[in-house]
Amino acid sequence: MRENFEALDKCGANHVPLSPISFLNRAAEVFGPETAVVYGKDRRSWAETADRVRRVAGGLQAMGVGLGDTVSVLAPNIPELFELHFAVAMTGGVLGAINIRLEPETVGYILDHSDCKIVIVDTAFRPLVDQAMTEAGLDLRVVEITDPEGPAGLGGPSYDDLLKSDPMSGDGLPQDEWQAIAINYTSGTSGRPKGVVYHHRGAYLMAMGTAAAWPMSYGASYLSIVPMFHCNGWCHPWMAPINGAKMVFTRLPDPQRLFDAIASEGVTHMGAAPVVLQMMAESDLAPKAAFDPPINVFTAGAPPPPAILEKTAAMGMNVMHVYGLTETYGHVTQCIPQSDWGDLDLQSRAERSARQGVSFPMMEPVEVVNRKANAPVPRDAETQGEIALRGNTVMKGYYKNVQATLDAFDGGKFWSGDAAVMYGDAYIQIRDRLKDVIISGGENVSSVEVEAMLYRHPDVQTAAVVAEPHDRWGEVPCAFIELRAGATASEDDILGFCKDRLAGFKAPKRVVFTEIPKTSTGKVQKFKLRELIGN
Amino acid sequence: MRENFEALDKCGANHVPLSPISFLNRAAEVFGPETAVVYGKDRRSWAETADRVRRVAGGLQAMGVGLGDTVSVLAPNIPELFELHFAVAMTGGVLGAINIRLEPETVGYILDHSDCKIVIVDTAFRPLVDQAMTEAGLDLRVVEITDPEGPAGLGGPSYDDLLKSDPMSGDGLPQDEWQAIAINYTSGTSGRPKGVVYHHRGAYLMAMGTAAAWPMSYGASYLSIVPMFHCNGWCHPWMAPINGAKMVFTRLPDPQRLFDAIASEGVTHMGAAPVVLQMMAESDLAPKAAFDPPINVFTAGAPPPPAILEKTAAMGMNVMHVYGLTETYGHVTQCIPQSDWGDLDLQSRAERSARQGVSFPMMEPVEVVNRKANAPVPRDAETQGEIALRGNTVMKGYYKNVQATLDAFDGGKFWSGDAAVMYGDAYIQIRDRLKDVIISGGENVSSVEVEAMLYRHPDVQTAAVVAEPHDRWGEVPCAFIELRAGATASEDDILGFCKDRLAGFKAPKRVVFTEIPKTSTGKVQKFKLRELIGN
Repeated sequence: MRENFEALDKCGANHVPLSPISFLNRAAEVFGPETAVVYGKDRRSWAETADRVRRVAGGLQAMGVGLGDTVSVLAPNIPELFELHFAVAMTGGVLGAINIRLEPETVGYILDHSDCKIVIVDTAFRPLVDQAMTEAGLDLRVVEITDPEGPAGLGGPSYDDLLKSDPMSGDGLPQDEWQAIAINYTSGTSGRPKGVVYHHRGAYLMAMGTAAAWPMSYGASYLSIVPMFHCNGWCHPWMAPINGAKMVFTRLPDPQRLFDAIASEGVTHMGAAPVVLQMMAESDLAPKAAFDPPINVFTAGAPPPPAILEKTAAMGMNVMHVYGLTETYGHVTQCIPQSDWGDLDLQSRAERSARQGVSFPMMEPVEVVNRKANAPVPRDAETQGEIALRGNTVMKGYYKNVQATLDAFDGGKFWSGDAAVMYGDAYIQIRDRLKDVIISGGENVSSVEVEAMLYRHPDVQTAAVVAEPHDRWGEVPCAFIELRAGATASEDDILGFCKDRLAGFKAPKRVVFTEIPKTSTGKVQKFKLRELIGN
Repeated sequence: MRENFEALDKCGANHVPLSPISFLNRAAEVFGPETAVVYGKDRRSWAETADRVRRVAGGLQAMGVGLGDTVSVLAPNIPELFELHFAVAMTGGVLGAINIRLEPETVGYILDHSDCKIVIVDTAFRPLVDQAMTEAGLDLRVVEITDPEGPAGLGGPSYDDLLKSDPMSGDGLPQDEWQAIAINYTSGTSGRPKGVVYHHRGAYLMAMGTAAAWPMSYGASYLSIVPMFHCNGWCHPWMAPINGAKMVFTRLPDPQRLFDAIASEGVTHMGAAPVVLQMMAESDLAPKAAFDPPINVFTAGAPPPPAILEKTAAMGMNVMHVYGLTETYGHVTQCIPQSDWGDLDLQSRAERSARQGVSFPMMEPVEVVNRKANAPVPRDAETQGEIALRGNTVMKGYYKNVQATLDAFDGGKFWSGDAAVMYGDAYIQIRDRLKDVIISGGENVSSVEVEAMLYRHPDVQTAAVVAEPHDRWGEVPCAFIELRAGATASEDDILGFCKDRLAGFKAPKRVVFTEIPKTSTGKVQKFKLRELIGN
């Protein structure tokens, strides 16, 4: 009877706020002596790591950090940034991991906009932070991380000082799982970056759902490549303690270090953009024999081209294509191989694997929606709509930006801004960023599809396609190309290559050979290309 | 800044009540054509299963089932009971899966106490339900499941009628994740069974945490042995859709059926009590070759004896010992093999594996507490205390039993009633049910330890040890023994065997040869043994 069931209340025994801090507290007990962190000559157990985290949290509290205070960090992937994922959260603070490749002006904007209270910085990025503060007129307290590989610092409070603090008391769990845990700024392919706020509940479920779906079980060794300033490294730092995975750090993702780490630490899991996989696959340093056991790899940021899937498979990598946005804590869809894909030839399998796939288990099923009609598109692999997402790993909202938050959550769904189709099997495939779709003679042209064709030309290093105004067709595709070193293809060569292979309305009408402008994270800034051709 | 972070609210896009219903909705999309259920000649996909569930839910709604209504089910492990785990929940109802081995009087008590609205019953158990209702003075609506292997029914509404209903509309998710999803009655080793209430949040986290920790990933084939009326089969039915595992049902757990299913369905995962593993390992039907790939097995209910671990390892089973109670949705601790256990000899490894271990990732770290001192016991593997648990897979409470709920949750922890020690590595080991500890001459004697020694005697089939009052020592151990068929050991043989191997105060002072009373689930009813000897 309803009232009898409802009479049973929450209490400390049966309701604990969901937070990845619980995973660390448990790992300190369950995996105490097992290796948690490997970095150069440093090897630390989960017990040591948890102790360091509690000391850093105690030190931050002593500096005045408490509920809702932003602690910004500028560092490459080193153990300190990993530890701060837990330490800042334990104080009630909010971790703001900032992209170290950004220009000072944007770093200053982020420090200011996020109401940063303390900046923790690897000495290599101290000049960047100082210049950013000067430009933004800020005078924040700075804590330096002195990495063995970094330059000398400017002095003042250091991470080592934090480590000398008394450990914080209590379990460090939030009162409310909806409490903010991190703020990550979008990369700004259009306009000012927005501050995406994550909460403890989402971080917990992202970590647990990923551990279940990858899966990542006992004895895993995780190579940290995805920068922790991108969606907190897809929330993998919060996942590691669930099953006591070993986190392997190399500071820089250069092939020598990555291959050395794989060999010496028995890496089983990693995440990396396709461009990193390509770099590894094409490196002279790549080992001759395939990794055994194979490495489980999530790749995101762009669909992995068939050639990369082929090469990485030969290297001993199980690559799964995943998709997400800063607003979704990282990956929320995955291209799970279906049981009959094994029968397909490589090309067909690669085509399937390049789809963005289906939702992760912590999310509701992904939708592709015709927003005007407010209805899902037919599952015909052709009709485009916008990817809409719902679930517990969708952001709390944009910090101090009510209108953008309302727009993003219009009608109770998160609107991704990505144009996609849905196949009969419910797998989605992105066709383009909505704003990058080219409408030529009334036909939708996916810039991504045209770019994929350009990449098949042997001389093409980088390609980007945008709409160019056209008197007759409204818009036509215009291709921007960076050629490979020593390559000599002409505009006519490229145009002819495409014309032979693409429908006429999809083929570019012009080629511009130029260096293609990118964000610090490597995303093409198409708005700059449009400016170049007056669109 | 705190107020800016707190200004970001929950909405439909970023907050979905945690419920295993989401896993089914997603599986219908993501694993649509993959096999969900295998039972005899029946094979159904996830899309079909989800459709059946929605029809059954629609049919139950048409019968008036709604928020907080208990729907009781008496059935062995067949697909219908699996489907009802989702269908009842979708209506807002509460699933009461009742032990089919109970006597009518207790079934009647449970139907009455749980405020059951509708009983769904496999025709084989229709007489049990009818008698139960007669004894309890109830006249509930009954829906019959006509299983191909069951006898003819008595007619009236049937599960097939439910399947002909219109599918329910909407996604079936609860408004509030704290909503009740199931009620499971304790087995009643002491007094009346209590109604343990589970909620959607707990069911979701139990499923996700288990999938992450086992792990159980894509392509898994799960053999359903643990009765779904025990903690909802340890919540594994709710876990299956997370990664689209195939659920294999055999109705009865007899060795022929189990081995056939393993062979034909490529079973990768199962849960079973040690006694079932023993039955399989000692069966003449057991295949000669080890299972390849090995089967991942959770075992619970009693520590697996070394001999069983040895035999099951030889069969190709990776057995993990897990521990939990009805009040904790099933398993909440697991004996994770540590990285250096591989170096141990079999006996030592078996001893380690017989520990109850450490908490699952959805729980806070398990504690062993001296309740009088309100402090954890030293981690010395000797000092006994009570196992205390905290986390999101602890029950909502006992149905209509405020005092028992308050007692169980005293001080914000769930008190298990199990006496245990903690090792230096934070692994726990149960020594006894608290009320079964024998206090002899001021020394604590674990009845479990004495029983373990008795089991090493070749003539002993079943052993149970309870306290017998004693003028000098206060209490002394008294052993109850069932001998193996044809065995001839005398009381003196048994007493001498123990005396040679146990400390004097631990050795039983009397042996009673008798049939040992057990609950329908096979648990020894020690209170009946105590009555036999006037204690």
